[in-house]
Amino acid sequence: MSSKPFLLYTAGTPNGRKVSVFLEELKAIYGSAVDYDVEKIDISKNTQKEPWFIKLNPNGRIPVLVDRSRNNFAVFETAAILLYLEQHYDKEQKFAFDPAKQPNDYSEMLQWIFFAHGGVGPMQGQSNHFRRAAPEDIPYAKKRYLDETKRLYNVMEIRLADRDYLAGPGRGTYSIADINVFPWVRGHTFAGIETLDEWPNFKAWFDRIEARQGVQAGVAVP
Amino acid sequence: MSSKPFLLYTAGTPNGRKVSVFLEELKAIYGSAVDYDVEKIDISKNTQKEPWFIKLNPNGRIPVLVDRSRNNFAVFETAAILLYLEQHYDKEQKFAFDPAKQPNDYSEMLQWIFFAHGGVGPMQGQSNHFRRAAPEDIPYAKKRYLDETKRLYNVMEIRLADRDYLAGPGRGTYSIADINVFPWVRGHTFAGIETLDEWPNFKAWFDRIEARQGVQAGVAVP
Repeated sequence: MSSKPFLLYTAGTPNGRKVSVFLEELKAIYGSAVDYDVEKIDISKNTQKEPWFIKLNPNGRIPVLVDRSRNNFAVFETAAILLYLEQHYDKEQKFAFDPAKQPNDYSEMLQWIFFAHGGVGPMQGQSNHFRRAAPEDIPYAKKRYLDETKRLYNVMEIRLADRDYLAGPGRGTYSIADINVFPWVRGHTFAGIETLDEWPNFKAWFDRIEARQGVQAGVAVP
Repeated sequence: MSSKPFLLYTAGTPNGRKVSVFLEELKAIYGSAVDYDVEKIDISKNTQKEPWFIKLNPNGRIPVLVDRSRNNFAVFETAAILLYLEQHYDKEQKFAFDPAKQPNDYSEMLQWIFFAHGGVGPMQGQSNHFRRAAPEDIPYAKKRYLDETKRLYNVMEIRLADRDYLAGPGRGTYSIADINVFPWVRGHTFAGIETLDEWPNFKAWFDRIEARQGVQAGVAVP
């Protein structure tokens, strides 16, 4: 039996990497208290649709985090995992804002988390599908989701016009709002967006995050 | 000047109704302390893309809640609005779980909120698009999103097999996890799903929520 507090079921996708990036960022501060074992799920074999996995997540999707230190409590949905880890394991609140003491920053962080969770992830995912996986060539759908992904990137460009990070006072503070969307943006070429050059502030934000040691460690998992 | 504490920019869509349903539920308990003015946004005229609205929500989407009682703080993204209202205005925690005292119930509530926000809303919305709005008839896309919406309904059927509500101990407690997805399910026929009969527990959940007075008042807005 491993003594590491977490078991992460994941795969090499943007959603999987949201969680490994945050775990690596936490590890850099809190060390072995947030260490984790990785079980790679072969999504090409639909392992995530097997009955044992459906018991962990009825939606049959990676990632799932199992918290051995809290009676094997299982958490699914990437953003819910980030908020769970933040609440229980980022005691110094290095990566988020205190709901009671900074309620507006906390709300803005949630707003940008939901923006990415309901927009960037699903829409960029559809762009991936129609460019990479669909058995038919459907120009209308390809254009629809490429255009929508670009529109959403432009929304972040607007937000980042006078700030370094998506949430937080002043020019913003690196937080789980950034971690939650970064791995999707990292996959922009896969979705048909060759470069981020048309969004200079957004691109600077991307480069700023990509340079972080925890981020580089996190995107290498599994 | 109105003395009502909130101004809600909304339209007669599932996302708009998530917020009006919750506000009506809160009003039934807390009265005028949570009363709100409604400004209907004509999304057919793209009013939500005008510069004054982009200042409230750079994503150019309804709904947006403006909290006059907290210095006109503006909140976008439906689920972020629900969590904001819950934190500040549901002092008796009638519609959610205490993060500190019920951390697992709170996390499960968030998991189901994100499940709906990243799955049911975007995917059912694509089904609506390809059935109702797309200028081309694309059978592959119609089938893809209808099938995915049904799959997501089936995930909720699995969750509700032994419970009355999506989150909460035992058989569950009515919460913002339910409010967050109900208006989408209410629009199932629009998305091409004639009946909920194939998901009996999910259908019973739907009927249970639809019968609530606050829900009936909320879906009538605007």
